[in-house]
Amino acid sequence: MKRYRLTLAYDGTLFHGWQKQQPPGGTPLRTVAGVVEEALARLLRQPIVLRGASRTDAGVHAVGQAAVFDAASPIPVERMREAINSRLPVDIDVRAVEMVAPGFDFVREVVSKRYRYRLFCRELRPLDRRHYTWHCWVSLEVDRMRDAASRLVGEHDFAGFAAAGHGRETTVRTIHRCEVERAGEELHIVVEGSGFLYNMVRIIAGTLVEVGRGRLDPGVVDEVLATGDRRLAGPTLPPTGLWLEWIGYTGE
Amino acid sequence: MKRYRLTLAYDGTLFHGWQKQQPPGGTPLRTVAGVVEEALARLLRQPIVLRGASRTDAGVHAVGQAAVFDAASPIPVERMREAINSRLPVDIDVRAVEMVAPGFDFVREVVSKRYRYRLFCRELRPLDRRHYTWHCWVSLEVDRMRDAASRLVGEHDFAGFAAAGHGRETTVRTIHRCEVERAGEELHIVVEGSGFLYNMVRIIAGTLVEVGRGRLDPGVVDEVLATGDRRLAGPTLPPTGLWLEWIGYTGE
Repeated sequence: MKRYRLTLAYDGTLFHGWQKQQPPGGTPLRTVAGVVEEALARLLRQPIVLRGASRTDAGVHAVGQAAVFDAASPIPVERMREAINSRLPVDIDVRAVEMVAPGFDFVREVVSKRYRYRLFCRELRPLDRRHYTWHCWVSLEVDRMRDAASRLVGEHDFAGFAAAGHGRETTVRTIHRCEVERAGEELHIVVEGSGFLYNMVRIIAGTLVEVGRGRLDPGVVDEVLATGDRRLAGPTLPPTGLWLEWIGYTGE
Repeated sequence: MKRYRLTLAYDGTLFHGWQKQQPPGGTPLRTVAGVVEEALARLLRQPIVLRGASRTDAGVHAVGQAAVFDAASPIPVERMREAINSRLPVDIDVRAVEMVAPGFDFVREVVSKRYRYRLFCRELRPLDRRHYTWHCWVSLEVDRMRDAASRLVGEHDFAGFAAAGHGRETTVRTIHRCEVERAGEELHIVVEGSGFLYNMVRIIAGTLVEVGRGRLDPGVVDEVLATGDRRLAGPTLPPTGLWLEWIGYTGE
């Protein structure tokens, strides 16, 4: 048995998220992990269990998801990318396949994750990007957003930036970087950190948008961090604008 | 009765083209004209006949389609855009509504049309642009494509650049402009002319791609124009990459 790591890109629009789901008595939902496992099982003629570094929600996209599986395979690793891609639908793309040590722990070795929330900032509807950005038709003051973003950096208790029922033992996380970048007609909120609570990036994005349009002050970030009160933060933005961009491993 | 002109943008992915279609005994197909007529009829409470300047095919997109209809409407023209948009699905967007002279002829007044064919030119699959570009994974020599493009400009018989069965009396058209533009990871073929034959832009794009990858010489354009032989030109590229960009009217 060898252990492989995949780097995956996908358009999350037509997936019920990453995680395999089998409703009791129903047909399995179309999920990224389910579709990739099935392709791997057909290619390698053995059952495959795929474990992802991030359980992206329905509608969330990725360009740098990481996932690990074990298999006995006669296929040279340098040929696996094309072999898997030829068995995948057009909304998933394997970007890289590597062999890792058999003891490689796909969860514990993750030291950093980066997400990007894409805002489309024109009055006109973003016809060809409506599944890939969130349309923000009000004008945003980028300097205010950057002020708020900088207050998120560091080790904090992010309970106030998490959806209820996140079920994690601790809500302390470290944000290494939180930036607001202009990208043509889009504005991107880039957040990199040690880990994220449920809906955390979408709530951060919603809070920065409220700050940018003037309905909240940049200082609201300090308040939410200090009180842990979800109600003080902005709304949870829709999944369409969210992209999982990069998973960083120890020593890479 | 007043005559109105709409400027329309749409994502053609989920439409069976522009033209209303009612298969005998079947349910009507989802077409742009059909959906917009229905929205106008609900808004204005009268049957509406919408006539478009270009009959775009299934999968073809538009940012500047023009269409005309007659109606007796109490709604001020400056409020119509929002009123219509609020009744349209997310894949159509009315960009402008104007009143035109009652005798305005939506076909005869058209002096120019501009199309843009978008090529996505990286080896990686264009996940979030796969419905809006055509993925060309081979590298293209832009200078060769520009040489070929310049040979299309002028008044010519474009029979060799038209799909069979176009059913037009004359195949002589004038191309005012044919350019190859770089746009980030994309290459755009922009064609502006007095009018276009069936599939003409997609065949021009397919021919320029064959020239760019070295399988045809730029001089092939002269040959196709001289002989009218469709078999000498390149393939018809898929509709996904094609955008109707602008309709030019007399005196505008």
